[in-house]
Amino acid sequence: MSSAVDIYKKKTKRSSRVFERSKKFHVNGVSHNIRFFEPYPFVTKSGKGKYLVDIDGNKYVDYWMGHWSLILGHAAPQVIDPVKKQLPSCWMHGTVNELTVSFSEVIQKAVPVAEKIRYVSTGTEATMYTVRIARAVTGKKIIAKVDGGWHGYTTDLLKSVNWPFEESESLGLIDESHIVSLPYNDLEQSIRILQSVKDDLAGVIIEPLLGGGGCIPATKEYLLGIQEFVHKNNAMFLLDEIVTGFRFLFGCLYTSMNLDPDIVTLGKIVGGGFPIGVICGKEEIMKIADTSTHKKFKRSYVGGGTFSANPITMTSGRAMLEFLKKNLKVYKKLDRLGNQARKDLSKVFDDKVAITGMGSLFMTHFLANGVTEVKNASDASKCDTELLHRYHFEMIAKNGIFFLPGKLGAISYAHSEFDIKNLVESSKRFSASIE
Amino acid sequence: MSSAVDIYKKKTKRSSRVFERSKKFHVNGVSHNIRFFEPYPFVTKSGKGKYLVDIDGNKYVDYWMGHWSLILGHAAPQVIDPVKKQLPSCWMHGTVNELTVSFSEVIQKAVPVAEKIRYVSTGTEATMYTVRIARAVTGKKIIAKVDGGWHGYTTDLLKSVNWPFEESESLGLIDESHIVSLPYNDLEQSIRILQSVKDDLAGVIIEPLLGGGGCIPATKEYLLGIQEFVHKNNAMFLLDEIVTGFRFLFGCLYTSMNLDPDIVTLGKIVGGGFPIGVICGKEEIMKIADTSTHKKFKRSYVGGGTFSANPITMTSGRAMLEFLKKNLKVYKKLDRLGNQARKDLSKVFDDKVAITGMGSLFMTHFLANGVTEVKNASDASKCDTELLHRYHFEMIAKNGIFFLPGKLGAISYAHSEFDIKNLVESSKRFSASIE
Repeated sequence: MSSAVDIYKKKTKRSSRVFERSKKFHVNGVSHNIRFFEPYPFVTKSGKGKYLVDIDGNKYVDYWMGHWSLILGHAAPQVIDPVKKQLPSCWMHGTVNELTVSFSEVIQKAVPVAEKIRYVSTGTEATMYTVRIARAVTGKKIIAKVDGGWHGYTTDLLKSVNWPFEESESLGLIDESHIVSLPYNDLEQSIRILQSVKDDLAGVIIEPLLGGGGCIPATKEYLLGIQEFVHKNNAMFLLDEIVTGFRFLFGCLYTSMNLDPDIVTLGKIVGGGFPIGVICGKEEIMKIADTSTHKKFKRSYVGGGTFSANPITMTSGRAMLEFLKKNLKVYKKLDRLGNQARKDLSKVFDDKVAITGMGSLFMTHFLANGVTEVKNASDASKCDTELLHRYHFEMIAKNGIFFLPGKLGAISYAHSEFDIKNLVESSKRFSASIE
Repeated sequence: MSSAVDIYKKKTKRSSRVFERSKKFHVNGVSHNIRFFEPYPFVTKSGKGKYLVDIDGNKYVDYWMGHWSLILGHAAPQVIDPVKKQLPSCWMHGTVNELTVSFSEVIQKAVPVAEKIRYVSTGTEATMYTVRIARAVTGKKIIAKVDGGWHGYTTDLLKSVNWPFEESESLGLIDESHIVSLPYNDLEQSIRILQSVKDDLAGVIIEPLLGGGGCIPATKEYLLGIQEFVHKNNAMFLLDEIVTGFRFLFGCLYTSMNLDPDIVTLGKIVGGGFPIGVICGKEEIMKIADTSTHKKFKRSYVGGGTFSANPITMTSGRAMLEFLKKNLKVYKKLDRLGNQARKDLSKVFDDKVAITGMGSLFMTHFLANGVTEVKNASDASKCDTELLHRYHFEMIAKNGIFFLPGKLGAISYAHSEFDIKNLVESSKRFSASIE
């Protein structure tokens, strides 16, 4: 039997050639570190519904879904038509437009903390500004995050992202001492650490479901405990809902948990697949960014950026949210498919894996190194991540199923029960092959 | 005679109402600090060619041109058609695509330093990564920039942007001590400052034409002198060509000056008006970002981001550059109109102003406080910026001409000699009114 690599190479010959060219121009051949996988990533020609199609004509049922931003699948008609209609009125005004106002109206209703909103173009920018605001408002310096917490590439939060967490994420960082890291879902230890820095604590930033760190929901008890400590100590409770916002319900995860964050960041789904980051905060806090009332040395400098609130992102985002709002059945379907995937995959791999996630997000962890349950990013990192890569890669090569190797899966509205069954069948074959 | 404010209010009634709504949702009513002006900014309905049209139906000949990113004017047909064609194949793949490769091929030919390229979604991200790479490669910490130099909102470069330069730009910044600021176009003083930090100097980042700081070209002697010092001291010479790239010629300003930068950042024009930032660097330097060869603690962590190299930006950017490449007459026309504007405006205001800029960029400085020549951002800041605001606002209110008040003007290919004449005539009336 051919190996998965042989099969893959045979069916992706054009991709191989184009990727060789890509390496001439791009660091490691890619435009984003995580888009590379061995022996080379296939080169995409198009995305449509649940499929990615590569330039050799191979179709993949896609569970990566544009870094988990495409909840309706690729090239959703609900978004295409309004975007096409907007194009002749230009994709870049650089001035105030009405689209932004009506889009914000939808967000504010669904996300109560969004008393004031500022749009930026990426999640990285949204978290960067969030940290800046928290420090400005509190007059304190330390930001705490959790081990494995991923908030984009901003220098202000580039610490303890990847295993081993105690090692620096990058050369060229000059001030990691103002970032403190907490063990996720371990309230007692987290509070102990926060206690030791509380006098200079500006805020804590957490994803309510650890995304890149292993697709692991936070316990409500954990988030409430952190929130209580933070607020008691005049610091900011910051939730990063770039992955989770509008993913499980029409709004944010925090509302379903009765949390009271000071700032929430959004991105991905909320832009309908076009570049976006959103900072949503309480008015009392966000007003520090008002340059009409706060002069240079009294304000928190929160820009926007050339492309902020551009008419295409505003159009696309509003179309996406308006569709979801009128079609809450989307979430019911995603929950159903997600539960099915988690249940059936657990059965396939038996006690060899832990399947984490919720709603449409799920991730398979091959238990190893004494880990029996995956509660945080350390547990996830100790699992057999090489085997996970192999599992994902074999499905790419043999089954036309695409997970970005090693990453969590996102089901879209374009997927069906049939797709989940296929995924389960493919997983059975993989499971049998590693017996 | 009615005041400009009265005229403006009368003709922008719908804008006034919508902007009131916008203030409910957005800090200071806007999505970017600089988009606000008194009494309120008009609300844009569409952009087409040289015009912005507001929701009251007023047309403005636009010299802001989407933060200077739209060199062919609004909604350029050269970009619309390819973008429309791409939409059904999706606007977000999250994987490698061929569009990126062919786009990079065009950039690399025009910008020789781009031996390796990484795409991001904003200029802010591009300069953030550039600083990180410079520090990583040199193992040193200090980055020098110039007074009034603007490189986006990244925490790593947020110092000495706005007058008074010695004051912090924002609350909530925790480490400005690793950023050093130099007096632009003053080689002797700049070298003196660099000399004092040379042992820990990672790099110097400069716009070859100071954009936000006053539309002031750097002298070749200044840039060569800085480059020489930097390279002699094992630091990086970093050029920010986000504003200047493909603005004056098909390529970068640095090539026309025979400079030898290590990294150049691009943005704005190069994305055709869609969100983009580009890091172009020598292979020897950029390889530190290669995650296949450099493990966690040996690499410079240069991501990309969810939206990096998305198929719409790649399509739009490539269409823009291919058009420019085949139509170098664009630059000839822009030079001609720019020269005409600078010459005629100088005549209008006589010795009361200095007109700075080059090619299609120009800015009127009303001389004050003893300034007789505008060579750097301090000179520009000492000029009568309130009068400049008034000049721009009066043209918005009375002449249907839009400069973002206080900012430099950018002529696009959609403008004509007739527009420049109109601008000059309007300026004459303003000049007469302030006699």
